[in-house]
Amino acid sequence: MTGAPVRRRGRPRREEAADTRDLILTAAREEFSEHGYEKTSVRGIAKAAGVDSALVHHYFGTKEQVFEAAVEVIFAPALNASKVVTDAPPDDVGERLTRFFFGVWENPAARTPLLAVVRSALTNETAAAVLRRLIASQLLRRIADRIDLPDAELRAELAAAQLLGCAILRYVIKLEPLASADPEQVIARLAPVVHGHLTGA
Amino acid sequence: MTGAPVRRRGRPRREEAADTRDLILTAAREEFSEHGYEKTSVRGIAKAAGVDSALVHHYFGTKEQVFEAAVEVIFAPALNASKVVTDAPPDDVGERLTRFFFGVWENPAARTPLLAVVRSALTNETAAAVLRRLIASQLLRRIADRIDLPDAELRAELAAAQLLGCAILRYVIKLEPLASADPEQVIARLAPVVHGHLTGA
Repeated sequence: MTGAPVRRRGRPRREEAADTRDLILTAAREEFSEHGYEKTSVRGIAKAAGVDSALVHHYFGTKEQVFEAAVEVIFAPALNASKVVTDAPPDDVGERLTRFFFGVWENPAARTPLLAVVRSALTNETAAAVLRRLIASQLLRRIADRIDLPDAELRAELAAAQLLGCAILRYVIKLEPLASADPEQVIARLAPVVHGHLTGA
Repeated sequence: MTGAPVRRRGRPRREEAADTRDLILTAAREEFSEHGYEKTSVRGIAKAAGVDSALVHHYFGTKEQVFEAAVEVIFAPALNASKVVTDAPPDDVGERLTRFFFGVWENPAARTPLLAVVRSALTNETAAAVLRRLIASQLLRRIADRIDLPDAELRAELAAAQLLGCAILRYVIKLEPLASADPEQVIARLAPVVHGHLTGA
């Protein structure tokens, strides 16, 4: 199926546009998750969504901009991390955040697209810039805002480094015994580290 | 230049073979560093070394085996980490290891091929298996051997996760302020974490 989607009678134009936009965004999320940034094309996204490439450009702009919109959708669950930090009692920040992180990553349906984004960012400069903007502005800066200490952003980044490094060794490189370790054992070891980065002296 | 290298008169065969092997290994290291695992071919390595593809297979075997040999060369400086751990006074293990890690990664000549290997491992299952074998058997297990504590391997892996995650955010994603932070500031924050993983309760 190609060309703009057929307008259905009696539906308001705005709602239909939202439907088309969602259709493209869902297709983009799937294409980027399956093929990564470099091997995904606007034409491929359009084909998967059953629309013309021009419509993808109309709603999102360039491939980079479609990627950014897709990454925002993929990272939506992860972005709740800043709320977790806000809501946690001060002594529990590290444990809550670490538990939240593994709650997302232990779920294969969430992990697959997250890994695709991380892989894309590690191998493509444009994808790295998109991820950098998103995790800097929407995740780490918000967490840093909740830490009333010097070097709050650096602290948030080093906590993120511990968690991201663990995700890479556990889920991608699959180093044993880490890959098969009980999540609770990993959380027990990392929570104090994350807590120390965020709140320590 | 193609075909087997011309034998020079009066040189012993064994030495010549070692030269050819080195030539191929150097070419492999450069090809994998520049193009990553997936986009590098045995044919490309042979061409860069000025030899026939058959000679690459003769000395190393499959592409995976050439990659493994090249990764061993690339990781040679990093593999000294286990010696650093052995030689450090017990209270200084974390600081020495963290300083050693950034000593390698802050050097662009060492960093470029290391990053290429990490990128390859994150995007290709065969490359991930090679890296897993190498860092498990030659690096982390040796460090774990020096830790006389339960879960020594898991401890070494979580320390590695902190350092690797920091390298990715600093050198690849280039998150600020981490990317521009003074290495001494980063070392000061990470050394106690690495020390805690390796030696803590």
